[in-house]
Amino acid sequence: MISIRNMLRRSLVLASLLLPTMLVAACGGSSSGSENGPLQLADMGSFHVGGRDVTISGQPTRDLALSPGGITVRIDPNGTFSVEQAYVQYFVPASRRSILPILFMHGGGMTGVEYETTPDGREGWLNYFLRRGWPVYNVDAVERGRAGWSQTFEGAPIFLAKNEPFERFRIGNGAGSYTKRELMPGSQFPIDAYDKFVRQFVPRWTTTDDAALAAYIAAIDRICPCAVIAHGQGGQLAFRAAEARADKIRALVAVEPAGVGETASIEKIKGVPVLALYGDFIDQDPRWPMIKGSGLRYFDEVRAAGGFVTVIDLPQIGITGNSHVMMMDRNNADIAAAINRWLAERGLWR
Amino acid sequence: MISIRNMLRRSLVLASLLLPTMLVAACGGSSSGSENGPLQLADMGSFHVGGRDVTISGQPTRDLALSPGGITVRIDPNGTFSVEQAYVQYFVPASRRSILPILFMHGGGMTGVEYETTPDGREGWLNYFLRRGWPVYNVDAVERGRAGWSQTFEGAPIFLAKNEPFERFRIGNGAGSYTKRELMPGSQFPIDAYDKFVRQFVPRWTTTDDAALAAYIAAIDRICPCAVIAHGQGGQLAFRAAEARADKIRALVAVEPAGVGETASIEKIKGVPVLALYGDFIDQDPRWPMIKGSGLRYFDEVRAAGGFVTVIDLPQIGITGNSHVMMMDRNNADIAAAINRWLAERGLWR
Repeated sequence: MISIRNMLRRSLVLASLLLPTMLVAACGGSSSGSENGPLQLADMGSFHVGGRDVTISGQPTRDLALSPGGITVRIDPNGTFSVEQAYVQYFVPASRRSILPILFMHGGGMTGVEYETTPDGREGWLNYFLRRGWPVYNVDAVERGRAGWSQTFEGAPIFLAKNEPFERFRIGNGAGSYTKRELMPGSQFPIDAYDKFVRQFVPRWTTTDDAALAAYIAAIDRICPCAVIAHGQGGQLAFRAAEARADKIRALVAVEPAGVGETASIEKIKGVPVLALYGDFIDQDPRWPMIKGSGLRYFDEVRAAGGFVTVIDLPQIGITGNSHVMMMDRNNADIAAAINRWLAERGLWR
Repeated sequence: MISIRNMLRRSLVLASLLLPTMLVAACGGSSSGSENGPLQLADMGSFHVGGRDVTISGQPTRDLALSPGGITVRIDPNGTFSVEQAYVQYFVPASRRSILPILFMHGGGMTGVEYETTPDGREGWLNYFLRRGWPVYNVDAVERGRAGWSQTFEGAPIFLAKNEPFERFRIGNGAGSYTKRELMPGSQFPIDAYDKFVRQFVPRWTTTDDAALAAYIAAIDRICPCAVIAHGQGGQLAFRAAEARADKIRALVAVEPAGVGETASIEKIKGVPVLALYGDFIDQDPRWPMIKGSGLRYFDEVRAAGGFVTVIDLPQIGITGNSHVMMMDRNNADIAAAINRWLAERGLWR
């Protein structure tokens, strides 16, 4: 084995002298491996960012065994705690085609997992953009996933029952549709994997947006300039982050944003190109026409102030059947391709 | 550009006909890229596994705006919820050198993040083993990180104050050492990154071991046969998992396990080769001599029953200065190398 390895090493020296262009082509060419084959990464890793120290005092201690039968430890709820950080996992392709990285912001009750493998096992948007030569930074916001959560949050968190995403994300046909498993006609959601999908939801507070924003800004200060892809609740946080860091967000892709920026702050972000995407079945839904309507009004204001906003109604470009979680719908690659085209038109990918 | 690309493609056809061994060597040879250069992955993704449905009833509803200024939604705490699943992220190298994958189990209050990038930005054990041709499956156990947590857990969770890992993980020299930042002499912990390290802790319950074990077993049933690398609290869960799935765990590496298996169940797991690792400064600590002592007694019992157990006291093989979180200590690669050698001796890597 060793002599064969040495032979290979000698071949490598020869090859790297004689055939550099061949090797570039063979090892991945213009992107991070092929669009289906192996992925070639220059780097991958993770870090936490942002947060603050908080000191708690005056609470009683308690004695607990940390494992059944284990040694008792005195638990002191007092002290100085590190709270309200975000978690970022990143993947850098060996061969880049983008000018900047993408920073992913997830939706409400979710984590960065929403951009990973789809519930039915297909590749998600993280892999899609990585394969096309984008460095990708996937965030778990404050309180979610690997960011952890804190005893300092106000109020109780929300837990989503299994029927709620079905009925509120336009997978099913409105209230009561989960019981009957009644899908929107032509739904692209991978319904056979619905039970797997709901496992990715995590508890959500409604009082932590400011903390989430602060940690997102800390992440942006570390990662960007970048393009942001944000979903649902993350959309509103992305607009607020862009108001604070317009110089660092070179493009904002808002996937059915739950909220948008403030009219009073439009001057701050009118230089940030915006792509807003909306899926199917919005007119039939009790909530989504209002959410989309306030988005469209805001985008008109941004345009009137001289900003650049593209709104894509997916059904209008022939992409139909999409739920609020379009990044995991069956046609998720078609939507990612539309986003990538728009980013390329902005000069951020070639 | 296009004609150059076409030229490269033609070169590639030529190269793949003439120089297959050169290309194998140049693109990664016998492992997943070099040990320092690009990483080549056949696949990467994630999934949730395990868990159960639970139905809650009789609780009052509340109305909440999910985002500031957003539309009010009626929050119903009743319904059927998906609870107690685990999260698994996996990376499969393009070129394998191992017979089986590695499944990582994290320690108490931590998540799979402990095996990723170290707090001071070096590569962790996940990358280490991936680069050496092991498929790696990194779990967030029930209640931690991207696994989410559930309103069904009993009792209140524990939040670790910043001083606690310092004083309990043998980074500092015992109680009160954090205030003075008094390190163990010769400590290998990357102390300048301590504030980054504590951001990775998440709330921990003391009542969820059975749920965590059930989801680990579901993960094992999906992923294994495999080798398990488990840390601290995860060590005890790994021994319990091995008692349930001795046929699927072909090697168990227990890094300072907080607990071990049951004497009554030794017959079940005596066929599973075990490597237990212990770091430095244990004699000076008020808790660790007892934890290690009960581990060593158990390992003697396993050996007496005909099992194969290797215990490595790191200082005895010249690896000194290690804390309880040795996977992120400065010499983490030396310890990973010792683990890999042991796995190779078991015939699981070459």
